Amino acid sequence: MDAINIQEKFNLFSDLWSPKKVGELNGQQILLAKLQGEFVWHKHAHEDEFFMVIKGSLDIELRDKTITLQKGEFFIVPKGTEHKPIAKEEVHVLLFEPLSIKHTGDVIAAITIENYENI
Amino acid sequence: MDAINIQEKFNLFSDLWSPKKVGELNGQQILLAKLQGEFVWHKHAHEDEFFMVIKGSLDIELRDKTITLQKGEFFIVPKGTEHKPIAKEEVHVLLFEPLSIKHTGDVIAAITIENYENI
Repeated sequence: MDAINIQEKFNLFSDLWSPKKVGELNGQQILLAKLQGEFVWHKHAHEDEFFMVIKGSLDIELRDKTITLQKGEFFIVPKGTEHKPIAKEEVHVLLFEPLSIKHTGDVIAAITIENYENI
Repeated sequence: MDAINIQEKFNLFSDLWSPKKVGELNGQQILLAKLQGEFVWHKHAHEDEFFMVIKGSLDIELRDKTITLQKGEFFIVPKGTEHKPIAKEEVHVLLFEPLSIKHTGDVIAAITIENYENI
């Protein structure tokens, strides 16, 4: 039970598209991830998903528009909404989402991770 | 449905100890607050509470220790844990907590706010 320094946690890993769990509360989890390149189109039928950019710039493609997030900005992808994160350069994000969420939602891809590592 | 810039939201208010709602997801809410001085001792019987410092330095006194948070650090106060936030100088925080939470938990004080304003 202590303070968590987000930058120190980011220093512990380098793999991309592999969220790490840094906290849990009220059935939800706090994840950190490093992203670069394109993710897959997917949706989460029952979970809203919060993306906040800590470093860099992230595009979240939706079917009808693209949300661009800079450092210090966040977006909540509503449940059921197809989305595809894209990062031209490496971006660091903090995610807040239910413990029940699946990495790539309704699809299984080569990039899919079953269980998030605690760091 | 657009990106939310945290600093722009902080620019919209100046009152202390009065969390503003900037997002809602999965029965949880995203709050921003400006704090300075001492809050009251209280606890939330059923809700864990996430504090992340965006600007400044925050002490969260617990009964047996004090957690000090700098910018870029967070702490989750577990449900049922008495706590008292203290900010020697103005601090800006982002909170994740259930929609059901009460501002001062199990106590009512002059500082208590019933409903958080959306901004």
